Amino acid sequence: MANTSAASYPMIGGDGPCSYAHNSSFQRTAVESAQALINEGISENLDVKQLIFSSPSSPNSFSIADLGCSVGLNTLIAVQNIIESVKFKCQADDLCSEAVEFQVFFNDHVSNDFNTLFKSLPCDGQYFAAAVPGSFHGRLFPKASLHFAHSSYSLQWLSRVPKELLDKESPAWNKGRIFYIGAPSEVFEAYSDQFAKDMESFLNSRAQELVNGGLMALIIPCYPVGIPPSQCPMIVIIALLEATLMDMVNMGLVGEDKVDSFNLPKYYPTPQELRSLIDRNGCFSIKKMKPLVRNRGPVNESKIQDPILPLRTALEGPIKRHFGSKIIDELFDRYKKKFLESPIFSQVNKNQVQEMFVLLKREVA
Amino acid sequence: MANTSAASYPMIGGDGPCSYAHNSSFQRTAVESAQALINEGISENLDVKQLIFSSPSSPNSFSIADLGCSVGLNTLIAVQNIIESVKFKCQADDLCSEAVEFQVFFNDHVSNDFNTLFKSLPCDGQYFAAAVPGSFHGRLFPKASLHFAHSSYSLQWLSRVPKELLDKESPAWNKGRIFYIGAPSEVFEAYSDQFAKDMESFLNSRAQELVNGGLMALIIPCYPVGIPPSQCPMIVIIALLEATLMDMVNMGLVGEDKVDSFNLPKYYPTPQELRSLIDRNGCFSIKKMKPLVRNRGPVNESKIQDPILPLRTALEGPIKRHFGSKIIDELFDRYKKKFLESPIFSQVNKNQVQEMFVLLKREVA
Repeated sequence: MANTSAASYPMIGGDGPCSYAHNSSFQRTAVESAQALINEGISENLDVKQLIFSSPSSPNSFSIADLGCSVGLNTLIAVQNIIESVKFKCQADDLCSEAVEFQVFFNDHVSNDFNTLFKSLPCDGQYFAAAVPGSFHGRLFPKASLHFAHSSYSLQWLSRVPKELLDKESPAWNKGRIFYIGAPSEVFEAYSDQFAKDMESFLNSRAQELVNGGLMALIIPCYPVGIPPSQCPMIVIIALLEATLMDMVNMGLVGEDKVDSFNLPKYYPTPQELRSLIDRNGCFSIKKMKPLVRNRGPVNESKIQDPILPLRTALEGPIKRHFGSKIIDELFDRYKKKFLESPIFSQVNKNQVQEMFVLLKREVA
Repeated sequence: MANTSAASYPMIGGDGPCSYAHNSSFQRTAVESAQALINEGISENLDVKQLIFSSPSSPNSFSIADLGCSVGLNTLIAVQNIIESVKFKCQADDLCSEAVEFQVFFNDHVSNDFNTLFKSLPCDGQYFAAAVPGSFHGRLFPKASLHFAHSSYSLQWLSRVPKELLDKESPAWNKGRIFYIGAPSEVFEAYSDQFAKDMESFLNSRAQELVNGGLMALIIPCYPVGIPPSQCPMIVIIALLEATLMDMVNMGLVGEDKVDSFNLPKYYPTPQELRSLIDRNGCFSIKKMKPLVRNRGPVNESKIQDPILPLRTALEGPIKRHFGSKIIDELFDRYKKKFLESPIFSQVNKNQVQEMFVLLKREVA
């Protein structure tokens, strides 16, 4: 309800060279790759007759929320696909898809650039658009008011940095690191516990907001079991950032305590961990859970003009807030060198990136 | 549905000295003065048991829209009052007000500064907030999805400048003027016809969006019958702007054709005209229609540090778009001189400003 959580780091808004609108093609291919799965999921699991055509108080309306929408094309593509899938399902069930009125809620943190998002909305009258500011780890909508929730590449962000990482007396004090890779097990557990709590509050909130029979599609980058961290691009990206910051500490450009007190609020669960958290929550049945097969591999990402820009877009928010904006350009210049020297990004194969597509159904006994 | 109309001139956003957030105390006293009327209107006309507690699909939720919300405190005050009035009505009817979940939709043009609005939302969890971009002269919400609509100081803005005002061949060509005062009757009729069309499309849209039994509260500045235009502050404000622009034409600072092609998309109906348009539309019954009695008179406005700022905030948008931003500062400096020399603003009494409060009920036979 319009409250920002501790880790409220929106993607960079506006239309500039570092904006999310211009640097989200990696996330876009994930959204595009999920289209067929959503289409199939809606076709197999959505009872349109019951949800849309038998509701006495909101006749023929269907409401969709994109949670963690950010700015730019990705959310519009995702939403468009959901609408088309629902219309297709209506037609397949001999129901009049023309009669359905769609309402779409675009959600992200209060500090997201909604002004820019609104300017990019289509004017074709396909749906009624609304923006909902606030953290999706809490309630955002009235009870039983949504038919379909979607969230892509957002749930890996934690609602907060686990507080024990900053406690010098705790075995989980994360000195000299900004993430859990290469850290003591207590650090990893603090991250993992926070992710579990966040998933629980996310699922509990959505369970109240979705109508009985409503669906939720999630795309979550996961840690691929069996791959060493040094071969996992998502991890290497952060390890290189950590190494760059430590270089700058050693050169006296950044205070050591500044790095000690910074931790990236991000976590990549394993697919098994994700499944077990959903099962343990118990509010949803898993209708589909499978790795996304990207239409275009992430290898393409390194072919774009400046391969650092998308990473900068994704990482700059929390870094700027903690370290201030003065170091940003130098940090990312140094980061870029390390990135281009690292052989991993030219060798990536699809087994080293595992994005899970999960389709959940709210079913009240 | 996220489409801007021709006259999409939002109030100035952000937090600066000319922002609506800092220059809307005149509109605020109108909102405050309407509080008791809304409270009374809800108490007498809202069947909370039927609307909130007997809805099978959206249990216990109540949705409110503020249409033309702009940025700043006014919309938050209005919404808060509606929520408190509904809760009070629930308690009076022995229903559990704690169980009601409120969803509030803040609507304005796509170009409104929603980012700033979101930052000023209360964090007390009293309601779920959403922003809806687009012109309220068209549909913005699914059918039967609103319980209460509110619009204050917005309906006087036309959706477009009537096109005949710009047609040199038409008797309604408005050469040398920016408004309908002192103009041929054809000009006045073009304005008046546009207002009638706008009210019709506004009422038709809301009639579809409001549930049966839903209410709508409107605050509309009207032209007080029997007062000459030269004694009506709302009119004099525009006449002085017109005179300032013509001075600048005579000094060669503004092109004559620029003024000829500019017309302020604003219209003040008489209370009788307003009533007859609502009656003619036929979708709503008028439950209350009376002049607002301001808690603080508009005289106070001239006591604020710079009395021009609120006017500049309200008028700058369309002027800037038409004349460009270069002339703005000089125009308003010159305007300020004329304003301070005009005796009317120190003499205003409440009969010269007539703001109508209208409470409508959607009743389907």
